[in-house]
Amino acid sequence: MVGGGQGAFIGEVHRLAARLDNKLELVCGAFSRDAENSKLTGQQLGLDPSRVYKDFDAMMKAEAALSEDQRMDFVSIVTPNHVHYPVAKAALENGFHVLSDKPATKDLEEVQALRALAKQTGLKYALTHTYLGYPLVRSARELIQSGALGSIRKVFVEYIQGWLATDVQNKQAEWRTDPAKSGKSGCMGDIGTHAHNLAEYVTGKRMTHVAADLNIFAPGRLLDDDGSVLFRMEDGIKGVLSASQICVGCENGLTLRVYGETGGLSWAQENPNRMMRTYLDRPAEILTSAQSYLSEDVQSMYRTPAGHPEGYLEAFANIYLEFSRAISSGGSLSASMDSAVRGMSFIEALIESQKHNSAWTEVLQ
Amino acid sequence: MVGGGQGAFIGEVHRLAARLDNKLELVCGAFSRDAENSKLTGQQLGLDPSRVYKDFDAMMKAEAALSEDQRMDFVSIVTPNHVHYPVAKAALENGFHVLSDKPATKDLEEVQALRALAKQTGLKYALTHTYLGYPLVRSARELIQSGALGSIRKVFVEYIQGWLATDVQNKQAEWRTDPAKSGKSGCMGDIGTHAHNLAEYVTGKRMTHVAADLNIFAPGRLLDDDGSVLFRMEDGIKGVLSASQICVGCENGLTLRVYGETGGLSWAQENPNRMMRTYLDRPAEILTSAQSYLSEDVQSMYRTPAGHPEGYLEAFANIYLEFSRAISSGGSLSASMDSAVRGMSFIEALIESQKHNSAWTEVLQ
Amino acid sequence: MVGGGQGAFIGEVHRLAARLDNKLELVCGAFSRDAENSKLTGQQLGLDPSRVYKDFDAMMKAEAALSEDQRMDFVSIVTPNHVHYPVAKAALENGFHVLSDKPATKDLEEVQALRALAKQTGLKYALTHTYLGYPLVRSARELIQSGALGSIRKVFVEYIQGWLATDVQNKQAEWRTDPAKSGKSGCMGDIGTHAHNLAEYVTGKRMTHVAADLNIFAPGRLLDDDGSVLFRMEDGIKGVLSASQICVGCENGLTLRVYGETGGLSWAQENPNRMMRTYLDRPAEILTSAQSYLSEDVQSMYRTPAGHPEGYLEAFANIYLEFSRAISSGGSLSASMDSAVRGMSFIEALIESQKHNSAWTEVLQ
Amino acid sequence: MVGGGQGAFIGEVHRLAARLDNKLELVCGAFSRDAENSKLTGQQLGLDPSRVYKDFDAMMKAEAALSEDQRMDFVSIVTPNHVHYPVAKAALENGFHVLSDKPATKDLEEVQALRALAKQTGLKYALTHTYLGYPLVRSARELIQSGALGSIRKVFVEYIQGWLATDVQNKQAEWRTDPAKSGKSGCMGDIGTHAHNLAEYVTGKRMTHVAADLNIFAPGRLLDDDGSVLFRMEDGIKGVLSASQICVGCENGLTLRVYGETGGLSWAQENPNRMMRTYLDRPAEILTSAQSYLSEDVQSMYRTPAGHPEGYLEAFANIYLEFSRAISSGGSLSASMDSAVRGMSFIEALIESQKHNSAWTEVLQ
Repeated sequence: MVGGGQGAFIGEVHRLAARLDNKLELVCGAFSRDAENSKLTGQQLGLDPSRVYKDFDAMMKAEAALSEDQRMDFVSIVTPNHVHYPVAKAALENGFHVLSDKPATKDLEEVQALRALAKQTGLKYALTHTYLGYPLVRSARELIQSGALGSIRKVFVEYIQGWLATDVQNKQAEWRTDPAKSGKSGCMGDIGTHAHNLAEYVTGKRMTHVAADLNIFAPGRLLDDDGSVLFRMEDGIKGVLSASQICVGCENGLTLRVYGETGGLSWAQENPNRMMRTYLDRPAEILTSAQSYLSEDVQSMYRTPAGHPEGYLEAFANIYLEFSRAISSGGSLSASMDSAVRGMSFIEALIESQKHNSAWTEVLQ
Repeated sequence: MVGGGQGAFIGEVHRLAARLDNKLELVCGAFSRDAENSKLTGQQLGLDPSRVYKDFDAMMKAEAALSEDQRMDFVSIVTPNHVHYPVAKAALENGFHVLSDKPATKDLEEVQALRALAKQTGLKYALTHTYLGYPLVRSARELIQSGALGSIRKVFVEYIQGWLATDVQNKQAEWRTDPAKSGKSGCMGDIGTHAHNLAEYVTGKRMTHVAADLNIFAPGRLLDDDGSVLFRMEDGIKGVLSASQICVGCENGLTLRVYGETGGLSWAQENPNRMMRTYLDRPAEILTSAQSYLSEDVQSMYRTPAGHPEGYLEAFANIYLEFSRAISSGGSLSASMDSAVRGMSFIEALIESQKHNSAWTEVLQ
Repeated sequence: MVGGGQGAFIGEVHRLAARLDNKLELVCGAFSRDAENSKLTGQQLGLDPSRVYKDFDAMMKAEAALSEDQRMDFVSIVTPNHVHYPVAKAALENGFHVLSDKPATKDLEEVQALRALAKQTGLKYALTHTYLGYPLVRSARELIQSGALGSIRKVFVEYIQGWLATDVQNKQAEWRTDPAKSGKSGCMGDIGTHAHNLAEYVTGKRMTHVAADLNIFAPGRLLDDDGSVLFRMEDGIKGVLSASQICVGCENGLTLRVYGETGGLSWAQENPNRMMRTYLDRPAEILTSAQSYLSEDVQSMYRTPAGHPEGYLEAFANIYLEFSRAISSGGSLSASMDSAVRGMSFIEALIESQKHNSAWTEVLQ
Repeated sequence: MVGGGQGAFIGEVHRLAARLDNKLELVCGAFSRDAENSKLTGQQLGLDPSRVYKDFDAMMKAEAALSEDQRMDFVSIVTPNHVHYPVAKAALENGFHVLSDKPATKDLEEVQALRALAKQTGLKYALTHTYLGYPLVRSARELIQSGALGSIRKVFVEYIQGWLATDVQNKQAEWRTDPAKSGKSGCMGDIGTHAHNLAEYVTGKRMTHVAADLNIFAPGRLLDDDGSVLFRMEDGIKGVLSASQICVGCENGLTLRVYGETGGLSWAQENPNRMMRTYLDRPAEILTSAQSYLSEDVQSMYRTPAGHPEGYLEAFANIYLEFSRAISSGGSLSASMDSAVRGMSFIEALIESQKHNSAWTEVLQ
């Protein structure tokens, strides 16, 4: 693991998720640019001190030098955004698969370089688009792609938070609102990309054009903290994507609504164990977790029976399970290198559209 | 009343609403272009046959000829859209106040002519923007305009239905999807204007610019049946408005969310007796109908105590009460002539934006 | 109408409901024991002063003396409980149908006398069990009695309010908590009977035995303000009924859940336009108002299309419509004399069970 | 760990929960009476084969013989009910703390023997009343016991499932419906005890008397699959407890509502990250997970920020954390030996009340 030292948030979440199913073990890390922090974190995690490294370069080299049955299998990247690329690059160059937080890199150029490198090395690369790990999101994808809703017409996807409504001062806020660390976009890069990814994942269609209106509401902020986007997808699908971090009182409001010719679906991350399905002339249905009417694939993603809520950590653990299966037996990935490129491409298109007064802009890759 | 004969929908709703509070009596009508239909409707309503007219012109002239204490006080216009203007014009010209369904007219020119006429005659004119009659919408307006949420930043407003997802064939669908009767827009004219009006009503700010993406999804349809709009309002407010009639399984999904610097509100028409209010560092609150913590003004809009759901008809009746108070004692109107003009201006701006590939377009009036 | 003068609550609700559908007209009344109040109320309602009576006896005699086409068709009784019986008796004796608020009388003896009188006169008698006027309650009854849920096993019914949590001082609270005016029971008589009636109505089965635990929580109160009841119904159905007026923050929480061998239903009065239906191996369904999948009978109870919330007043108006149909064309009544007797019998059984330390007690009639 | 071999459900849940926070390691087990199953389970869990035992007796003896730093710290008991007692007894006798599934034993006598043994040995004993591990349940307890709701008056607690509505044939159903393995009660022992425990936990008051109506609905079943209970607690609190396994379509419906003189709370396990708080004259509040307005103690129970749903496994992990803290540093336990005794005492009282036609029966211990 690279990143995730004292004071970080998402690193510990990764560790909880990776540990849950007893399939993975954290064996080494470079947890902070501050060597003392890294060392302390390693101690608290009970790691062999010789495998707690001062920086990621040291880690890559030392681990690569270990025998195959000893060295780490893959690298988890849980740093602020601007460090994603150099770490992923080093990992791939040293022969390690990569599971990285999103966005993949700070710009499109970098992610394209990564794609080339992954292709060349044949190594696995995936993004932790956690929300794809929710079983009912998988079920939504199955229903939509099986044609159960007819041809899809309209997609609404939102990711609404409120924690940056004021001029927050903490470690999480600090790097997310700093262009040098976060990249070209704040809110859209941080959470808008999840919404974009979710829309493409469940429909199986690419978002081709966007017309974006990005905003900075908090005084003094340098990156967007809110935005809404009209979009077009392949096959004539239209939609709206909103992401915000200034909607006071909203927590982690990722919601999805998809409407086809003959049916619809709606799902919300904050109550993830239910999904509504609508029909033309029948009552709406409420699909719930771990039920026998879900596909076997979806059922297999639950650890407990219906009525026992599973949440964010379980979804995250599903992402880790999927990645380890992909490494060991070649299984598919929900968000692999193509998603990574498309996520960056989406951000670039938003920035471009914003520059041109919200003009329709092609998402290039 | 003009319109509202056999087979119509909204005319009977007007009559139910007008009757509820025992303040108004239907005294005459021209209910249909089909004289037989009109006559039959009048009979069923127990009207004096001499005051059931063959057309609205006849009605205006005959009623104007009656003595002041005998003739009707005002005209309710409940016809398809294209007839709103000629009836309203005739009413004003003959000295009658007008309560009209929206949209006011089929284009901006007509509504401007109406405004001039209303100004000249000093008569009252109002639109039945029914949703403004919900007490918690009034409460939202009070809270927002009192500054309780701080400066407003973002508004989400939606009006989502599903009844036109297929190629429906009935009287309601027929005129709403016919450009000759409905006007320049289908879905946006029919329900998008309600959403527009609601956003302006609760914030007290004008929507100044729109970037619209209107769609026709049902094969063969001639007018938009779906659309999403990015918008800007006065004082830097940004927002998104979506309206659709093809979202399968949605019924009458008018929802409003407003976020300011220090708080937020959300409300949904389908469960109108509750509204959520959010804060920066306190739990969200659920405001419910007829409670003592609402303003006296809002409390006075309920007919039953807390916990007794009031719905669409009661909201509609509140619009009638407001209009009759405005006539008798000069009270203010939620949606008067200025709203009527602005609604048409909004539609014109959408059409214009749509023509220019969703370019930002000013809402002129 | 008897009762419903200045300061009363439910009388005005009756008038709103009766007026809504334009089928009924209030023609006379004895609105208060205070003749001045009665007179004033009559004036405000625009009644002929000669038909505003000083008391109900005067009204019965004077109206009976009018010609058949002039006199009132039936009497609405909207007084405090203790006056229900004498008024109903006088009405029946003078040849008038009766629509009475519940409970029918202050004890079982009185309601039995009423039943005899109704039988003897052949006149109609019904109680305003308002909640039976909600269309989805009708739909629940249809589904249950058609066997769609299999044999019914368990019924949960609650009516939970909070308005008497403190020592409230107002006209509504005053008579409801006074044994001389309210009868033998406070909370159970006031709202528990609605819950009892609802359980019997939807299942079509009689509640045969009760084991009751009634409580007085507010200091100084003389009648129960809370209670829970285990019950048995015909055909082996078991259940629980709770009613309370001291559950702080609850408004008018009448809820129903019914479970049979193969399905279940749940409905809540505060959001009456939806009902959940559950199945053994399929997703739960959400049935909503005015939809085409409801029976024609149920659809006919709505005045507006799906998505337009109808509430308490509309339900109440449905009770009036039903009663007027029953008078004019012999249609059936949701809550007729048998319900009235059973409601009183239920109260008597609760009191008896309470006296015997919650022992199982037969509901006699 | 004793129990939790192939085909079991709750054993794996224990392992997931124990592992989550990286504080505990599974070191040995006797997973099944079938030695082969036990061995296989041990293999799959990566245990040292020498510490996978053929039965719990062997395990206790062998582990006790290990040096203190090698042997297990405590035993998790995850067997069917009838085995809880012999295992717990053996563990305590051999010097091991015990964390056991509920109910503690098959009757009151056994649990009293256990209590004596625990007292004598000074070892820790706790039950996995998982639902006490939900942070908002902890918050409910704090609010109630701080007096924030005033003196408590009424408690509603339910645990409603539907999975035994039919004659289910699987391993879970098999032992739960077998008196020899499950104990004197089916549904009440399995889930009613959770409801009982929750009511006592949040109020801090003992349930003193019960009047029970237990039912067997599924043909051929030998133990109750449904029941409702009137209850009295210390300090005049009244309540109703319902538990059922035949409510078709219900999943794991544990709900709690508590009303005091000045406020109320409601919480539902299936959406555990929100709790409603009501007031006399203010809007209800929605408390949500991990928010700054919760106590520090409650906040510390979350692993992720507000808006990231945590569920059943996280609650279960909190129980493990609490138990390991109690062992290492003497922290308190939510459900210790006294709860265990009271749970059995509650069941005994239900059975006794049921025998006496639902008579009020004292909960003795």
